[in-house]
Amino acid sequence: MKTAITPTRAENFSEWYQNLIVAADLAENAPVRGCMTIKPYGWAIWELMRDAMDRRIKAAGVLNANFPLLIPIEYFNKEAEHVAGFAKEAAVVTHYRLKMIDGKLQPDPESKLTEPYIIRPTSETIIGEAMSRWVQSYRDLPLKLNQWVNVMRWEMRPRMFLRTSEFNWQEGHNVFATHEEANEDARKMHRVYGDYMRDVLAIPCIMGEKTPEERFAGADHTYTVEQIMQDGKALQAGTSHDLGQHFAKSFGIKYLGTDGQLTYAWTTSWGTSTRMMGGLFMTHSDDDGLVLPPAIAPHQVVIIPITRGDEDMDAMNAFTANLESQLNDRGVRVLTDNSDMRAPDKMWKWIKRGVPLRVEVGAREIETSTVTITRRDLGKVSRETVSVADLGEAVVAKLDAMQRDMLAAATERNKKMIHDVANLAELESALADGKVGFFRIKYNTTQSPEFDALMEKYKITRRCLDDADPEYVFVAKSY
Amino acid sequence: MKTAITPTRAENFSEWYQNLIVAADLAENAPVRGCMTIKPYGWAIWELMRDAMDRRIKAAGVLNANFPLLIPIEYFNKEAEHVAGFAKEAAVVTHYRLKMIDGKLQPDPESKLTEPYIIRPTSETIIGEAMSRWVQSYRDLPLKLNQWVNVMRWEMRPRMFLRTSEFNWQEGHNVFATHEEANEDARKMHRVYGDYMRDVLAIPCIMGEKTPEERFAGADHTYTVEQIMQDGKALQAGTSHDLGQHFAKSFGIKYLGTDGQLTYAWTTSWGTSTRMMGGLFMTHSDDDGLVLPPAIAPHQVVIIPITRGDEDMDAMNAFTANLESQLNDRGVRVLTDNSDMRAPDKMWKWIKRGVPLRVEVGAREIETSTVTITRRDLGKVSRETVSVADLGEAVVAKLDAMQRDMLAAATERNKKMIHDVANLAELESALADGKVGFFRIKYNTTQSPEFDALMEKYKITRRCLDDADPEYVFVAKSY
Repeated sequence: MKTAITPTRAENFSEWYQNLIVAADLAENAPVRGCMTIKPYGWAIWELMRDAMDRRIKAAGVLNANFPLLIPIEYFNKEAEHVAGFAKEAAVVTHYRLKMIDGKLQPDPESKLTEPYIIRPTSETIIGEAMSRWVQSYRDLPLKLNQWVNVMRWEMRPRMFLRTSEFNWQEGHNVFATHEEANEDARKMHRVYGDYMRDVLAIPCIMGEKTPEERFAGADHTYTVEQIMQDGKALQAGTSHDLGQHFAKSFGIKYLGTDGQLTYAWTTSWGTSTRMMGGLFMTHSDDDGLVLPPAIAPHQVVIIPITRGDEDMDAMNAFTANLESQLNDRGVRVLTDNSDMRAPDKMWKWIKRGVPLRVEVGAREIETSTVTITRRDLGKVSRETVSVADLGEAVVAKLDAMQRDMLAAATERNKKMIHDVANLAELESALADGKVGFFRIKYNTTQSPEFDALMEKYKITRRCLDDADPEYVFVAKSY
Repeated sequence: MKTAITPTRAENFSEWYQNLIVAADLAENAPVRGCMTIKPYGWAIWELMRDAMDRRIKAAGVLNANFPLLIPIEYFNKEAEHVAGFAKEAAVVTHYRLKMIDGKLQPDPESKLTEPYIIRPTSETIIGEAMSRWVQSYRDLPLKLNQWVNVMRWEMRPRMFLRTSEFNWQEGHNVFATHEEANEDARKMHRVYGDYMRDVLAIPCIMGEKTPEERFAGADHTYTVEQIMQDGKALQAGTSHDLGQHFAKSFGIKYLGTDGQLTYAWTTSWGTSTRMMGGLFMTHSDDDGLVLPPAIAPHQVVIIPITRGDEDMDAMNAFTANLESQLNDRGVRVLTDNSDMRAPDKMWKWIKRGVPLRVEVGAREIETSTVTITRRDLGKVSRETVSVADLGEAVVAKLDAMQRDMLAAATERNKKMIHDVANLAELESALADGKVGFFRIKYNTTQSPEFDALMEKYKITRRCLDDADPEYVFVAKSY
């Protein structure tokens, strides 16, 4: 059977993913090493994802703010693990002026900075400095801040949406009076992420804590939301860190307690990024292109006039305008494709872009005052003729059902992708057989040179401890 | 009379502005040369300003996208005027890794980039390159793109919100088949900006075209929205450029016309930034702090319980919760200040932050089922007692009236700030007398060494030609 995307997922998942991005017109590689340009359709998805996340962050009592792009190198140096974690991928600003020298535009040597700046790879340090001034007494706590910004981590093996040198994200940074509150907050934001993935993106996640080996640079605890892609690989989609007093001590974040004592505070940080888009695309799409959950589809419905050239176009336009206005009234995001493309080309365009519902209108539909609705996730078998009078209700019901069914399908697939293995020998044999997915194994068996050898050989990593039983860890290949 | 901000505007406008920003908790200088941190209250205002602008941009048929932060130096070099305009303030990335050398964290010499990158001061070049690939035929036109991003122009005399090295903005970039369409588009976005300033920010603007001397680097025409601050200085709040074919030719943006000919396209660009916040603050605030137009006030209403310590707090909480829910139902952004500050301190906090309406609730109000409402722009004279039953209606009416009245007051002030001068001698005498505001003078008289000398001596510049009669130009000191 011919598919819109070649190769198919089964033939070559990685190439399928690249071609999917092109076919759905989501993004392209930029002429800047490791960076991408997010095209309008991709960005429209991101805006919906971002706004849905932003509402949940605000509901958690967090305030948005905006901190500088550049970080003084000395700040970066204050937290030893943090430096070690990010120094190898830091973009460095060393000059502040260009000059034409020997006919070539170059950094003006006279504009060399005494202390270079780093483009933020994350903002714990510069926000830590601000918090050291903003937090004075227990009355100032908790202080909960978030920012939606671009960050940069120089990437040697870039991959669109999954690993790019520049990416867009939200980074939350909270301060508390006690470790208990801070740890509870890190876990709370972890749940906010998990709920968001499930309820908005229709992605079921493995929720757990990172092992000490895999923690964030400078964290006491890192909680992670891990997704299983259709090829069985893991995608870390959002992390939440209990930073203990590391940054409070490095930056002097102290508060005067009710007891009159000056005490170091406890901080957390938590982030999700455009990487989630990669997870979204690799979880739900098929060999014909994108499949978008209705909650974040820029167009939830596309109305496609099917014309043969001999139609009464005024009647057609009046008919589709009425459909559009009915759906607008119900708050449905709807687009009518009045372009001069051939009808089948229009259909395939919107199939590739994953629009949840296609509403076809031809001469027969106008005559009988009906429309034909097809769900993107189910395809032809879901084609249904609905009377125009029932359109609004039918569309809302179908969008709700599709959102639910997509989560159910992904949940079902996940189950088949999680394998219990009793020991390293079983793990190795499964990997050698080409079995894919998450392997659940006793954590202490992975603290061994034998496991290190398997990690190296099969490119697997520990994803997270199992929340249900932290003596076990999930192991998988990952993006 | 004691004022919340000292010095007052009359005493020292510039110092008043700095203290206003502190008093309203909007922003602070960052530990990065020329940059600022926008604090939560300032950022909440920006989010509302941004969203209101974004809706208008989308209504103009423009699609948002996201292009890289870094621009290859060679791109920058392709348009001669553009280089000249921005080379002197470009932040340059030269390395992509840090290394500990002699106990000090430094750019790793081995990570030096063969071709350095510039942090975007604006994105005409990198978007031009993309457009050269995205535009192939007349069917692809017009193409209208916008992005909300941070940009950087190294600033030697920074001033919060007005001139900072890093700032947040939207930059629109449109492509057309003909010069006529492009020019009409630049004028259209110019009107979008003017309407936005008037209807959302309650700021009347001088709308006009920049003189050739003051145009954007690489534009054929620059249209500008100029605001008059309370001290009579000009603030350029938004510009819209007809770029002719400069960037189309530099980047090869060509389209195949209906005639089968390959033709260079015509482009525009247009931008507004966080600088508008400076204009907003300096237009409407007074000696007691910020005054925010209801349209972009994070809290349009603050409910302030006035307690003496012997109240029935359950009754008070039930009473204010009812008010809050009434206002929420009407879509009013409302906050109840239940902090343990003294009532007068609460009052002053929200006065300084410019909340449009203060709703006071004390024992007497609970008893009589009334509230006392005060408008921020009018102060005590506007205090009015309203029955709880009428609260929603009264609040909505007062917010509407305040939005209108603020525009009217600013319009009235503008009129007094515009002066016709017949010749350079009159201009000089007005400036020597310390007269402030916009001076309207024949443009050709300013094309003279005498005017150049006045510009130098009085730090004035040409703001824009008068749309009503382009033989005249407005001249003013500016931010």
